[in-house]
Amino acid sequence: MADEEGLLALAGQIQEACLSRGLTVSVAESCTGGLLGHLLTDVAGSSGYFHGGALTYHDGLKQSLLGVPAETLRAHGAVSAQVALAMAIGGRRSFATDLCVSVTGIAGPDGGSPAKPVGLTYICVATPTGSEVRRFFWTGDRRANKSSSADAALRLLLAAAMGLP
Amino acid sequence: MADEEGLLALAGQIQEACLSRGLTVSVAESCTGGLLGHLLTDVAGSSGYFHGGALTYHDGLKQSLLGVPAETLRAHGAVSAQVALAMAIGGRRSFATDLCVSVTGIAGPDGGSPAKPVGLTYICVATPTGSEVRRFFWTGDRRANKSSSADAALRLLLAAAMGLP
Repeated sequence: MADEEGLLALAGQIQEACLSRGLTVSVAESCTGGLLGHLLTDVAGSSGYFHGGALTYHDGLKQSLLGVPAETLRAHGAVSAQVALAMAIGGRRSFATDLCVSVTGIAGPDGGSPAKPVGLTYICVATPTGSEVRRFFWTGDRRANKSSSADAALRLLLAAAMGLP
Repeated sequence: MADEEGLLALAGQIQEACLSRGLTVSVAESCTGGLLGHLLTDVAGSSGYFHGGALTYHDGLKQSLLGVPAETLRAHGAVSAQVALAMAIGGRRSFATDLCVSVTGIAGPDGGSPAKPVGLTYICVATPTGSEVRRFFWTGDRRANKSSSADAALRLLLAAAMGLP
């Protein structure tokens, strides 16, 4: 499980990178359930670049708040690279921010299957210059998996922000 | 600062109360930044009643995601009983859940004023039978204030769920 102080240090680095570049950020969280936004907003001054976002546990909210097509959810399932991509791109548009990071996965202990085991997680960062999706397999319990997802999402967000002018 | 185990125990009680009554829940978080959703989803099986919600740090998202009228924000400010009420009622409608809990406050250390000091927080729970807003003044640091707000919001949500048939 990612160490809380390490997560907060990452959130601080993201804030510095975004404020110095004038970048705004939003989140589109499914399996992390709000942890990502919570960590980003534990840093004083986060309102200077963090605009908010959506918690889309229910697939209906992935459609209504992020514009994920029903057909994409049907064809690939909520935990898929295609849905992670649609969540981040849709969130970036809906929330009108420069960057949007999405997380969709199976935190466990229930909800897994042979094809999509507990711990499978997709994370995507949408930016003005493109979007990148990554796939992860976590092997912890529910809380550890959420924490690992948040850690990976923060790292990808930081790298994306640092890569922008 | 509320104790984490105590917060998770509250989240567990909310889940039990909602599942046994067939109630669904959403959140409309401002100053807690996702902490409320994070705590609710740390309990396995939370997807059975928790649908998600919005993180509306930026006032523009309070309008676009929750339908808070610009005039209400202008007249009363984002940290006000009127906005907390509009967030919860708007969230309940936008996210199509039986209950929606909203939190808006000044976590600090910046953003306070003589009229609205750091720590001032409004919490509202909208239900099928009505809505209740409460005002709090927290005196901790940023993280403690977020935690106190989450604790109060969970207690009000639990009481609201227990009061429904």
